[in-house]
Amino acid sequence: MSPDASRRNEQARRAVIEAAFVICVERGFAQVTIEAIAARAGVAKTTIYRWWPSKAAILLDGVEMHRDASAGFPDTGDIMVDLTTQTANVMALFQGDFGAIWRGLIAAAQSEEFAADGVRRILRGSIDACVARLAKAVEAGQLRADLELELAVELIYGPIYHTWLLGTRPVPPDFMPTVLQALTPALRPQTP
Amino acid sequence: MSPDASRRNEQARRAVIEAAFVICVERGFAQVTIEAIAARAGVAKTTIYRWWPSKAAILLDGVEMHRDASAGFPDTGDIMVDLTTQTANVMALFQGDFGAIWRGLIAAAQSEEFAADGVRRILRGSIDACVARLAKAVEAGQLRADLELELAVELIYGPIYHTWLLGTRPVPPDFMPTVLQALTPALRPQTP
Repeated sequence: MSPDASRRNEQARRAVIEAAFVICVERGFAQVTIEAIAARAGVAKTTIYRWWPSKAAILLDGVEMHRDASAGFPDTGDIMVDLTTQTANVMALFQGDFGAIWRGLIAAAQSEEFAADGVRRILRGSIDACVARLAKAVEAGQLRADLELELAVELIYGPIYHTWLLGTRPVPPDFMPTVLQALTPALRPQTP
Repeated sequence: MSPDASRRNEQARRAVIEAAFVICVERGFAQVTIEAIAARAGVAKTTIYRWWPSKAAILLDGVEMHRDASAGFPDTGDIMVDLTTQTANVMALFQGDFGAIWRGLIAAAQSEEFAADGVRRILRGSIDACVARLAKAVEAGQLRADLELELAVELIYGPIYHTWLLGTRPVPPDFMPTVLQALTPALRPQTP
């Protein structure tokens, strides 16, 4: 492929992803269609179908593209400070444009294997980063030596997903600090 | 309405709900359509639309119908035993036919207000029952006096929904006993 054609392809790819994001944020995942994306991006439907198998695939590519630019798990040396910062970032992301896209992908993941694989792959990166940070805190004596780290991630992030996906109550602004405080006796080393 | 017509209506309603359940379990929520339900139940599409606004509404009615028959939160007098029993019941439900339906309704709830309201209403009943049981355990001195009970429900059930909806890892058979054991220092009264 010539450099010009390659650049045009890359621009079209970005236009498609951008269009899918905007439609999802403005109208919700259920309203995202290949027709609407093609119209907004100024790209033929056939081109889109040549590159992606479904709308979920387009949004997944977009999420993975944006994630590359984002920083890793914070590390100030104090695990509770870092968990507070990181969960606040996650809550803010979920309330913003990214939240609309991520919510749609998780919904799609309940019935589409392709979306389920993508969601799993993206989360695996985040979970591994969190587990690595928790492992460092265990070494530093800030967390229980016998803490199952994968389980600890589920204890910490489970309540976020529970309230966010199930909508069981309005989430107070201090929700995650309260969760972390409640979990502290389960996370901290036992005092002798 | 005559007693006969009323009985016929009730039979048709049940046939529609039953058909929606079977299709959802066999083929997944995405494949449930009013056409397929009508064909399977032997009921006209127009009749279905007169009674329900969407497929989610049919499944929600079915879930609420089945729930009436189910028992409340277990109460043996030992809260950790009861939480172990109840979470094992939930995990078993999620792995069975009910899980396919509940998973579809939660997916629909991410973009449909009607489904979101239904999911919230059903969960509210379960959460209130759990909170009442936890309150009794606080009174009995089995749980921390300062435990926020709504938050405690999210700490306990958050990890179930996290693993079940996000599919981040294969769930081991002893998953919830392990979660409850890990949470015990956060739930139990502090030893002096």
